[in-house]
This record gives sequence, structure tokens and C-alpha cells, in this order.
Amino acid sequence: MNEKIRIGVVGYGNLGKGVISAIEQNDDMKLVAVFTRRPVDSITIPGDNIKVLNNNSAMKYVDDINVMILCGGSSSDIPSQGPLFASLFNTVDGYDNHNKILEYFKSMDVASKESGNTSAICAGWDPGLFSINRILLEAILPKGKTYTFWGPGVSQGHSDAVRRISGVKNAVQYTLPIEDSMEKIRSGVNPELTIREKHKRICYVVAEENADKCVISESIKSMPNYFEDYDTDVIFINEEELVNNHSKMLHGGFVIRSGKTGKGLTNNHIAEFSLKLGSNAEFTANVLVTYARAVHRLNKEGITGAKTIMDIPLKYLTQRAFEDVCTSLI
Amino acid sequence: MNEKIRIGVVGYGNLGKGVISAIEQNDDMKLVAVFTRRPVDSITIPGDNIKVLNNNSAMKYVDDINVMILCGGSSSDIPSQGPLFASLFNTVDGYDNHNKILEYFKSMDVASKESGNTSAICAGWDPGLFSINRILLEAILPKGKTYTFWGPGVSQGHSDAVRRISGVKNAVQYTLPIEDSMEKIRSGVNPELTIREKHKRICYVVAEENADKCVISESIKSMPNYFEDYDTDVIFINEEELVNNHSKMLHGGFVIRSGKTGKGLTNNHIAEFSLKLGSNAEFTANVLVTYARAVHRLNKEGITGAKTIMDIPLKYLTQRAFEDVCTSLI
Repeated sequence: MNEKIRIGVVGYGNLGKGVISAIEQNDDMKLVAVFTRRPVDSITIPGDNIKVLNNNSAMKYVDDINVMILCGGSSSDIPSQGPLFASLFNTVDGYDNHNKILEYFKSMDVASKESGNTSAICAGWDPGLFSINRILLEAILPKGKTYTFWGPGVSQGHSDAVRRISGVKNAVQYTLPIEDSMEKIRSGVNPELTIREKHKRICYVVAEENADKCVISESIKSMPNYFEDYDTDVIFINEEELVNNHSKMLHGGFVIRSGKTGKGLTNNHIAEFSLKLGSNAEFTANVLVTYARAVHRLNKEGITGAKTIMDIPLKYLTQRAFEDVCTSLI
Repeated sequence: MNEKIRIGVVGYGNLGKGVISAIEQNDDMKLVAVFTRRPVDSITIPGDNIKVLNNNSAMKYVDDINVMILCGGSSSDIPSQGPLFASLFNTVDGYDNHNKILEYFKSMDVASKESGNTSAICAGWDPGLFSINRILLEAILPKGKTYTFWGPGVSQGHSDAVRRISGVKNAVQYTLPIEDSMEKIRSGVNPELTIREKHKRICYVVAEENADKCVISESIKSMPNYFEDYDTDVIFINEEELVNNHSKMLHGGFVIRSGKTGKGLTNNHIAEFSLKLGSNAEFTANVLVTYARAVHRLNKEGITGAKTIMDIPLKYLTQRAFEDVCTSLI
């Protein structure tokens, strides 16, 4: 048995908690410590005496940690923490600001190459597993079209936007893919779809006492960027129902490639990858942890710098030996 | 624009025809010649003066062909042709004898390493794309179970078996996944399924005049290995219906991973990859051609030997530049 891969976790939110749980599912890994920018005393992690340390003390652990998994947010935490940690450790993150990936890649590549480290970036499910499928399926069916649908799932950003409306006590927003559009694609038609034809939104809202529900409903439905371009249902419920029925972080989605082959492109093919996730954070954490294994192995082979799902072959992700994969999975 | 990748095709059956068509869909490739063991004069390829040559003359084309795509059968052609061609060319094949992959890998690895060539083996959809998903999803959800279903699709082997029965003039056999079992898996139950619970079979049979249909039907349903363990429907039709409605080589299937995460493994996740193929041969050909691109690039980088889908990262498969992938697909 090889030595276990020693993992550090940066950030103790839902994703950090998911990573701690994910490490327990993989017997080739162990957790060394959780790092936070909050006061260390404010955090108690249930379970087996897990060490909680301040981010500032991370550099003392350079020899004790093989891979640091970055579990902060993509808007402000990761862009600054990423290069900092990559200059000290191998890292993995699920950076998901799609518009800024190239910029982030460059800063991570410089930081990790200079320090001889390896970093896997954007290694969640979207970006991540969905990206794998978009790239792979487009390459295989060049004459075709790729569609991505998200949901059914909770969108944190949209839930927050609803909660900021005056008179709203609490709210959860679900994004739902529109089944009719997916069925059209699956039938071999390659439709051009508007925003409204791809997804709809449902908001479960707890209103303050005496709040005007009509006004709340209108405020939601007409909110630019967030709801205006979608068909949105607003359903008022009480706090108890919200807690009982809507506290799971369900999510998921679909990548569908529809392409044609043959003389005159007459034969149609549909390739589809989908996820139905009981917990968005826990599943994302499982993906991060899998890429932590890869990063550790790549670095041991002397392959440094920032890597995406494009660069990392499957053999670095699986625990299985090649012979075993050959006889059972290929 | 880089120089085009020059492809040779070995074998002019359905798969070879699919490869010729697949090359036309990719503007970074061109076809050099089709090689056959049949008399060269017996083959006429429709279209733009495609060169047909005997397998024995292949060695004269070592400088003209970047990658040779092997389109023979897995039972006898590829095991012998593979190492022979790999000692002269970079190769790609869709070898699909799952039980002998390790053995085949070893012989291809020796042949291609010794000659400084690169070969991608088992690079179709199963083995191939389905293998990618089995390996990837097992790594990400280690606490779970993977299921593979095939169909709805035509099985050549089973159709042949029915055609050999006395009184049968012609026949097409479809393998169908059992929807109820798939729905059970998608609901989060991880059932143990018997052969009968996973797939059923439908045979469309054209009987000889005066043949006893009851006897034919019984002979099919009780055939060991092929049908005995399955629920099989036998439907008699006339030759015209068979030709009109059952000559497409439809196929496809599903890889489903169901896994659990979190404290006490309470959250369930379903990841699913599926294919619905209008032409089995043409889609397989498209996969082979994509891996031909990878093999050419790997060899140019000095990476030689036999490779599987485990070894080849996505960046070698896509035509897109990294910057482009970063801003649009990841």
C-alpha cells in the first residue's frame, strides 16, 4: 500500500465540508488540516479532532500537505487565494467564472510553474465534467450542435436576489430545464433556442407578515438579468415548508450533442451526459478530490503548472491499476 | 493552416466506409488510400478517385501516411493485422474483444514502441467512450455502482445466429435495454440485476415459404447463450418490410453510475452517459478518426507505444486551440 495522499482544505463552507466527507470515501487519501480566514476558535468540525488553522499559517505545512483543495468562492476568494497557494502547494479548485478562465489559468500557471507545483483548475462539474463532454463530443461529431441545460437545481445567486426584495423573509430558487426543448433535440432536430425556451425558474418564497404578495411576485418576474428573460413561477409558502422541503442543494444538468454523419449527413446521432445530484456541494467536492489524486501523481512525475480537464488523462484519476481497468472497465 | 493529417484505411466494410465519410467531416485530415486483402479490382469506391490498394503494398506508403485506421473485425483481422501495421505506421483501432484487451495491448505496445510508432487501441464507443465514463464516474463516486445497458440496437452476431436456423430466410435482431430497470437505478436504488432484467431481445424474421413458424420461434427462444437467458419476442414479417424498416444499423446504450456521498452516505447522485446512434458503423468511425488526430500529435511529440482512452488527454482530440476551448467549452 502506497503512502496516503495528504490533503489540506482551504475554506470551511459547504464545499469544504463536502471535501472532508469525500476524503473519507477514498482510502488512498487523508485529511491533514482545514484552513480558514475566520477566527480558528469560531469553527468546530464534528468528528475526529480535525485540525483547524488560520490561512496565514499554511506555509508551515508545506512539507506535510501534498495537495491543497481550494474551497472558497469564485468571485473574490479563489482569484486571489489561488496563485498564493499555488506558489506553496499543489492545488485543486473548481473555479467557475467561465468568462475569466483563461486569465485565471495564466496566473495559476505562472505561480505553480515557478514553484514547481501542479494545479488543477476548474475541476468541478461545470466547468469540469460538462466541459469534458462538450470538448469530447464536439470532436467526435464535428457536424452538429452542443446544448447545455442546467437543473433541476437550486441557484444560490438567484435565491439571494429574491431574498433581497423588500417583504421577502426567505426564498429558494430552482432552475429547471425545459423538457420539450430537450425532447426536440433528442429527436434529431437542432433547434436555435432562446433563453426562455431553454430554462424556466420557480421561486419558493416566504413573505414577511403583511407584505404585498402581488408586488413581490411582480418584482421577481421583472428583475433584469435574473428573471426577466425567463418564465418564472412564484409560489408562496411558510418558513416551515421551506426548511422541510427546500433545504437540499439539489442540482444537475445535461450536455447533449446532436450530430450527423454519412454521405449527405443523413444519419443522426445523439450523445448525452447528465447529472442528477442530491447535493451540489458534495458532488463537486468528490470531483475536486479525484483531481487532487491526479495533481499529486502528475507532480511526482515532474509535470508542473496549471492543468485543466483537457490536460489530465484518466489514468491519473482512477485508483485502479492498468491491468484491472483493462479487464473490467475498458 | 497546418498540413493535413494523411490517413490510410485498412478494410472496406461498413466501418471502413464510415471512416472515409468521417474524414470528410474533419478539415484537418485527408484520405490517402484504402487497403484491402481482397482483389483490388473487386472494389469500386464511389466518389473522388479514391485509391484502392492491396494490404501487401502498404509498406511502400510508410512516408505518405501519418495514421492507419484498422477497420477489420476483432475476432481474427485485428489481432493479426494490428501488430503488423503498428510496426510500420501509427494506428487506431476499435478492437472490442473485452476479454482479450490486455493481451492485445501488450502485443501492440511492443510492436509500436519498437518501431517508434503510436497506436490507439479499443477507441470506439464500447470499448471507448463508454469505458471513459465507467472509469471517470467510478473514480468520482467511489461509493456506488456502475451499470451498462446496450441498445436499442441491432446485434450482428445475434442476427446471424437467427439466420442460421432452418426455415429462416432473413432476420434482424434488436437488443433492448429494460426501461423499468433503468428507472429503478435512476431513482437511487442500486439493484442487483439478472441478465433477463437488463436486456430483452426482438427478432424480426422472414420465414421461408411453408416453414413452420412455431418451430422457428421455439428454436430462437431456446438457443443457449444467445437467447435462452432473455425474454425474446419473435415477429414474422415479409422481406420488403425487413428491407424498408430494419436495414439501418441503429445502436446505442447507457452507462449509469449511481453513488452516494456525505455523512452516512445519505445523498444520492446519478451520472449518466448515453448514445442513440443512427449508424453504429459511422459513429464508431467518427470516434476512430478523432483518435487518429491524437495519435498523430502524440507521435510528433515523441510519445510512442500503445495507448488507450485512459492515456490520451482531451487536448489531443480536439481541433480547437486551448484559448478557444477556455473561452467557449470549459
